[in-house]
Amino acid sequence: MENVNGTTKDIKIAYIGGGSRGWAWILMSDLAMEKSLSGTVYLYDIDSNAAMANEVIGNNILKEYPESARWKYKTANSLKEALTNADFVIISILPGTFDEMEADVTLPQEYGIYQPVGDTTGVGGIIRSLRTVPMFKEIALAIMNYSPDAYVINYTNPMSVCLKTLYSVYPKIKAFGCCHEVFGAQIVLAAAVKKYLNIDMTIHDMHIEVSGINHFTWISKAVYKNIDLIPLYKRLVEEYKDTGFTDGSDDNWMNNFFKSAHMVKFDLFNRFGIIAAAGDRHLAEFCPGAWYLKDKDQITKLKFNLTPISWRKEDFKNRLEKSSKLASGQEKFDITESGELGVKLIKALLGEKPIRTNLNTVNLGQMPQAPLGTIVETNAYISGLGFEPILSPTRLPDAVYAMVDRVIKLQELTVKAALNYDLDLAFQAFILDPLNKLDLIKSRELFDRMIKMTSRYLPKEYFRS
Amino acid sequence: MENVNGTTKDIKIAYIGGGSRGWAWILMSDLAMEKSLSGTVYLYDIDSNAAMANEVIGNNILKEYPESARWKYKTANSLKEALTNADFVIISILPGTFDEMEADVTLPQEYGIYQPVGDTTGVGGIIRSLRTVPMFKEIALAIMNYSPDAYVINYTNPMSVCLKTLYSVYPKIKAFGCCHEVFGAQIVLAAAVKKYLNIDMTIHDMHIEVSGINHFTWISKAVYKNIDLIPLYKRLVEEYKDTGFTDGSDDNWMNNFFKSAHMVKFDLFNRFGIIAAAGDRHLAEFCPGAWYLKDKDQITKLKFNLTPISWRKEDFKNRLEKSSKLASGQEKFDITESGELGVKLIKALLGEKPIRTNLNTVNLGQMPQAPLGTIVETNAYISGLGFEPILSPTRLPDAVYAMVDRVIKLQELTVKAALNYDLDLAFQAFILDPLNKLDLIKSRELFDRMIKMTSRYLPKEYFRS
Amino acid sequence: MENVNGTTKDIKIAYIGGGSRGWAWILMSDLAMEKSLSGTVYLYDIDSNAAMANEVIGNNILKEYPESARWKYKTANSLKEALTNADFVIISILPGTFDEMEADVTLPQEYGIYQPVGDTTGVGGIIRSLRTVPMFKEIALAIMNYSPDAYVINYTNPMSVCLKTLYSVYPKIKAFGCCHEVFGAQIVLAAAVKKYLNIDMTIHDMHIEVSGINHFTWISKAVYKNIDLIPLYKRLVEEYKDTGFTDGSDDNWMNNFFKSAHMVKFDLFNRFGIIAAAGDRHLAEFCPGAWYLKDKDQITKLKFNLTPISWRKEDFKNRLEKSSKLASGQEKFDITESGELGVKLIKALLGEKPIRTNLNTVNLGQMPQAPLGTIVETNAYISGLGFEPILSPTRLPDAVYAMVDRVIKLQELTVKAALNYDLDLAFQAFILDPLNKLDLIKSRELFDRMIKMTSRYLPKEYFRS
Amino acid sequence: MENVNGTTKDIKIAYIGGGSRGWAWILMSDLAMEKSLSGTVYLYDIDSNAAMANEVIGNNILKEYPESARWKYKTANSLKEALTNADFVIISILPGTFDEMEADVTLPQEYGIYQPVGDTTGVGGIIRSLRTVPMFKEIALAIMNYSPDAYVINYTNPMSVCLKTLYSVYPKIKAFGCCHEVFGAQIVLAAAVKKYLNIDMTIHDMHIEVSGINHFTWISKAVYKNIDLIPLYKRLVEEYKDTGFTDGSDDNWMNNFFKSAHMVKFDLFNRFGIIAAAGDRHLAEFCPGAWYLKDKDQITKLKFNLTPISWRKEDFKNRLEKSSKLASGQEKFDITESGELGVKLIKALLGEKPIRTNLNTVNLGQMPQAPLGTIVETNAYISGLGFEPILSPTRLPDAVYAMVDRVIKLQELTVKAALNYDLDLAFQAFILDPLNKLDLIKSRELFDRMIKMTSRYLPKEYFRS
Repeated sequence: MENVNGTTKDIKIAYIGGGSRGWAWILMSDLAMEKSLSGTVYLYDIDSNAAMANEVIGNNILKEYPESARWKYKTANSLKEALTNADFVIISILPGTFDEMEADVTLPQEYGIYQPVGDTTGVGGIIRSLRTVPMFKEIALAIMNYSPDAYVINYTNPMSVCLKTLYSVYPKIKAFGCCHEVFGAQIVLAAAVKKYLNIDMTIHDMHIEVSGINHFTWISKAVYKNIDLIPLYKRLVEEYKDTGFTDGSDDNWMNNFFKSAHMVKFDLFNRFGIIAAAGDRHLAEFCPGAWYLKDKDQITKLKFNLTPISWRKEDFKNRLEKSSKLASGQEKFDITESGELGVKLIKALLGEKPIRTNLNTVNLGQMPQAPLGTIVETNAYISGLGFEPILSPTRLPDAVYAMVDRVIKLQELTVKAALNYDLDLAFQAFILDPLNKLDLIKSRELFDRMIKMTSRYLPKEYFRS
Repeated sequence: MENVNGTTKDIKIAYIGGGSRGWAWILMSDLAMEKSLSGTVYLYDIDSNAAMANEVIGNNILKEYPESARWKYKTANSLKEALTNADFVIISILPGTFDEMEADVTLPQEYGIYQPVGDTTGVGGIIRSLRTVPMFKEIALAIMNYSPDAYVINYTNPMSVCLKTLYSVYPKIKAFGCCHEVFGAQIVLAAAVKKYLNIDMTIHDMHIEVSGINHFTWISKAVYKNIDLIPLYKRLVEEYKDTGFTDGSDDNWMNNFFKSAHMVKFDLFNRFGIIAAAGDRHLAEFCPGAWYLKDKDQITKLKFNLTPISWRKEDFKNRLEKSSKLASGQEKFDITESGELGVKLIKALLGEKPIRTNLNTVNLGQMPQAPLGTIVETNAYISGLGFEPILSPTRLPDAVYAMVDRVIKLQELTVKAALNYDLDLAFQAFILDPLNKLDLIKSRELFDRMIKMTSRYLPKEYFRS
Repeated sequence: MENVNGTTKDIKIAYIGGGSRGWAWILMSDLAMEKSLSGTVYLYDIDSNAAMANEVIGNNILKEYPESARWKYKTANSLKEALTNADFVIISILPGTFDEMEADVTLPQEYGIYQPVGDTTGVGGIIRSLRTVPMFKEIALAIMNYSPDAYVINYTNPMSVCLKTLYSVYPKIKAFGCCHEVFGAQIVLAAAVKKYLNIDMTIHDMHIEVSGINHFTWISKAVYKNIDLIPLYKRLVEEYKDTGFTDGSDDNWMNNFFKSAHMVKFDLFNRFGIIAAAGDRHLAEFCPGAWYLKDKDQITKLKFNLTPISWRKEDFKNRLEKSSKLASGQEKFDITESGELGVKLIKALLGEKPIRTNLNTVNLGQMPQAPLGTIVETNAYISGLGFEPILSPTRLPDAVYAMVDRVIKLQELTVKAALNYDLDLAFQAFILDPLNKLDLIKSRELFDRMIKMTSRYLPKEYFRS
Repeated sequence: MENVNGTTKDIKIAYIGGGSRGWAWILMSDLAMEKSLSGTVYLYDIDSNAAMANEVIGNNILKEYPESARWKYKTANSLKEALTNADFVIISILPGTFDEMEADVTLPQEYGIYQPVGDTTGVGGIIRSLRTVPMFKEIALAIMNYSPDAYVINYTNPMSVCLKTLYSVYPKIKAFGCCHEVFGAQIVLAAAVKKYLNIDMTIHDMHIEVSGINHFTWISKAVYKNIDLIPLYKRLVEEYKDTGFTDGSDDNWMNNFFKSAHMVKFDLFNRFGIIAAAGDRHLAEFCPGAWYLKDKDQITKLKFNLTPISWRKEDFKNRLEKSSKLASGQEKFDITESGELGVKLIKALLGEKPIRTNLNTVNLGQMPQAPLGTIVETNAYISGLGFEPILSPTRLPDAVYAMVDRVIKLQELTVKAALNYDLDLAFQAFILDPLNKLDLIKSRELFDRMIKMTSRYLPKEYFRS
């Protein structure tokens, strides 16, 4: 990029997974609206047709909206081409297909193990990690070689596992991961403010102290101006713990199918005195299985859902159709504010308006309870200096941290297993997972079946000897 | 004590739990045989009749064996009397009675939770901790006030919880805990040496590197002279993993009722490549319940037993009878080498023959994987300088350490709960225990029932509002 | 204070050292201009006449400027009165008088030890600490008892020693320290931007990463928008390293007598590749004495000055006069923007506009190189949540950190000595100070003479036995 | 080596610096006397004639003493030849010649910097490190390639720097360093026992707790049986602090020219309350120069000497002569017990009699005060398991540790500089050395002159650009 008195031109963004029919379009829309930036986005995808479609869609925008920011889109045929001289790298890939994702959750169900998502932790999260880590290893090596100084923003799950892989392979990488799950908990807080104080506010008006790991993050403190929001939350929990509370918190594009009534969140608050900051369907997966995922009945009573992969597939089909309409010009690309932080973060890193927000990155001490070098989610300050973690002065309650630490250790173990293509080591993580209630024989049977179902996406090194 | 050119006279030992009909007699026997030492043992017990009986029994020894070492026994009527000017403090108490111990294991069985011992970890270990910690708090305060420089040797379970309490209340205490469970694993190693190399050796001829926590300790390395014993163990495991292996390893006075075939130990070795150094009945309690304690069938197949409290009660009855016979002179006290280290450790601490052995104490860094300040079991060097931990250079395998750490965290939490008389906090540990597979409602029901059964031994502070 | 929908009324500020004729007036002026706040400032000073004079001066403001913010000033007769229910505590005291301060620098000069300031480190800093720590111990105890939840802002030197005392005595204190020395280095950076890029900017337009200890703080990174400022600084150093560079950086009210030409700063940059962020007269005191404080000649060549205490005394006399004029109404109080952050920080802590700035507080991990629990200076994020340290990802160069660490250790030792009233321990710090080049006999002679000169302000416990 | 029921045959020892006319002969003598061992010693030396002479001398032993242990000596022509399949590696080299060593101490003297030894710390120690580190880098790489599992025993100075280099280059190396300086302090302790209690004892009868860094090691506790030796030492110091105390402590072959009266040791004890465990000539070099090395007068008053290199050269000439006499058979090789631990350590590592002794190795936590990964000297337990550090529970006094830490940091910095061939970085260590009292200009002049004098032994990479 070029630097004229502090203003940046000709930014190069490498988008890995650039054939995406979701995040990619959001990025295009947000970039189009941010007129202070301009440059080129290189779209790389193992599905090169998808990348090429997005190239067309992206380049149409400026034609359709001549006043929008000046961005070009190019399909890159290799990681090397995408990454060379990149200022920013965005990683948003689907490791495998929805078929693998389906197997990750349906096979365990045969054994009584229920996972509402199965992409982060749980037995499904472990299997997903085994196919994801080798892909991220390849990406990390390419970044090290072709764009060692670029900022790398990851959106792929399992977030912690992906980032741990990047930092293990290339320790000097400048990578962090963004996730909107925490925002959901903030929306509940805002709803409590509205309800009890009749003040209208957005989540951007509050300050929260947040720490933990992705999808199992915790809000220790929250204020709006100098109003302590925790007592308001407590009041909300008291009032709605038995019935659940419904609000607009999940009106996010990705989640609106899957509202919850926050009953898991409220139970955790009652029990541990701290706000769990992710959707119930994620939170439940980090706790011992008998707590919130014992059987379908319990899940129904707690008013959340197991995400049906059928929905994901249907949704994907719609997106495919939309993609061809957009590429062919049948449908006009719609530019709207997404609420996602990606472009705002890029701006902040370019020295424009700094942002304080939560993000995932390697623990340099920002979460003093957690071991150094693991991946944690805390606040950070993002500016022209880069992303500087903000230290969380409040310790998580001991029991909460015990649950967090347990998963940290299993994720570290899983990454190690995958980097060494060691299925026996991976199985050690598998049998220690909080959701796995099977005996060792059944566990092995399930593990072997799940491995088989995903084997198409596992490098052959896993199967040596 | 008096110090004449490095030789010690008039040693004062305070024995807390001095009415014991087991460990106390072993100590008496071992003291009688160690002629380089002499002094007085103050017996303190909340059952003062028991202490007085032991006073008679102890003082009979010198009459019956005039050549034995010159020790006097006195009943102490208070901790203050027992501890004032003590050089050594031995703690070996039963927290509550066998009725409470019975409830700790039988109530959970109604819910399908099986605990072979129930005195260390598991839901039973947590409840036992709740009644033990307040007792140890009182003892720690008394030591701080009356014998702050004494060496304190603990034999009481739950070992880690007891020591953590001592160090929490009086951080400068010089306390450690001894346990013979590791010796059992060494006997298996010696049996492998005999079997495959036809060399006769005792456990004192080998060197082991050991680390972990009490009853869940691990041998990373073992040598006899410069023979690496791990490959021999591996061969043994290969040969006997399916049938189990029987040897003399459990011919210890306390355990000979409860032999195992080491099938849990062998499975852990196969799975993690490291030797678990405790009896199977202990090891199983630290692992997820479905592994080795799913149901009675599985336990039978694995060839170990749930320790029947009925046996403990019967055994106790026999000991009571024996006690009156000994005190009345009907039966002569039998002096034999016990194999326990207690008296050898006292000798070493007095500057005589130093010993290298495993013991439990606060982690100053001797187990680099574990957090500082927690209670760990590693080797130590015991000499006139005191007990110096020997650092374990070998890290436990990640998965093994994950299991160890999980229990460390729960034990720390339990001690905190008990020191603050906070049953809700204790319940947090209870629902996170590896053996607890219940949902949150059933968990609370069981917890409340267990608390009720042990409430006679819980200070009333637990029940404030 | 009262809280109406997040807006604060009736704030109570306790000002310890409230008789000050410098910082107190700045605070009054800044408070008067900040109309969103109102409340009462309790002025406590061991010189109660000075406090009473300031009460009059402060209360005059609202009469003279009826549009100014609504603040009342009250003299407090005890720490208890000042602190009870305080929301904020400001500490700005002079430990001893200028006579003691004079002795701190003039006695060492007789031995060839030159200290430009003598209030932070160096032999003078150690002696000053011995009289300051007991005062801060008393203040910390009072805060613990009367306003345990207040935010405490310290301006007193030696900053690190004062804060360490506060945290040692009352570990849960919410205290931090502010110092404007870093701003001076930023002004040099801004001058380089102006000079080489012809861009006008203020220090508020740049972002810096800062870490170290007070008066020996280091800027690892600096950006204006996305312009890296380090190369510009490097260019400036190249151009001016031999002659020095003069700019407006020291036009601060306290320092304008004492400009420097940044030659120490530039030499340190040349040598270690990092920007030292304090005035030359401070920086020199942290380095081995022969580097920049060998003798008066060297100091003259390096174009900075030994701060003459005579000037401080003269200045003080002027302030006394001004005080009576202001109190009597002869002179009208002048309201101007001070540039100091105090009131802005209070506003931020009350949930108004958050600030990112450097401050001194206990190390929870924000400076990973430094031991936990020591006092460090890094950036922080100040908001309604409190002050959250921002972690400094960049390590100081090894040699620079070695110098920082050396002084950290001596300051910790000095605080320990003073808290225990142990002059022999203090002497250990004295002989290890970087500026102390004397042999052990001369050192003791100087130490004893310095102690004698300050003994009026040392508690008698120092002289037991 | 071959392993027959735990007894070792055909041990292979690689001796790097095998042409030595000192340590090599001691090893030969000790090996000849230890009949339980046998094997081959490969002698490698850049002076291959010296190695060949020692081959002859070594092989003569068995002829002259047919009953002695069966060892063969072979000259190795390369590190590869020496190391391949080695069980043990001994490193004892002279980095450069006595001419370089002379320059290390005489040039600084021109500037008023006195170093009694100049081989460990001080400006001489830094320059010596610059030529030593590259040699050890080469050795470490060779060990990694040819004998990765061998135990490596280093005798070369600067001990900490040499070991740090080994561990930096090959982190899995099993290396430690032996030094007899601590024994000297123990001899003083034994003399106190004799003097005040009239008990005859050797240093092997006492137990000490020792921690610190090589040549600046500290005895926190010392007992003989259960007699605390510290009060006896204190009495000795009281009695002799002004006159010094003479005993047989320095009758070691290397040191007997250089007795001291322990006045530095006694002053340090008086000041800090802990026993410094090295010769005065070493200790003085770690303290600020003005303490004990201000000028020659002060050194004379303190009754120790600057080691004259002329003596070393003379001694070397005598050893050369002796070498040819031994090789030619003119003189018979004398077999005597050396008191050095080398062979005893080898025996212990082979699973024979375990030893507890102090040694230098990487800090895994055995010295909790010091950073992990630095080189420290503490006790260790050496057995068939290897060398396991014994944790030092006693912290060094803060001021003492501050001095230790200062040198640790400079040694780490020096190793980093040398591994990167970075003379500017080395100069940073040079100007921060405790003995360097020069200003920055004089420092650079001295540094440049010293580098020039040693440049023959510095790899050319130091002088790129």
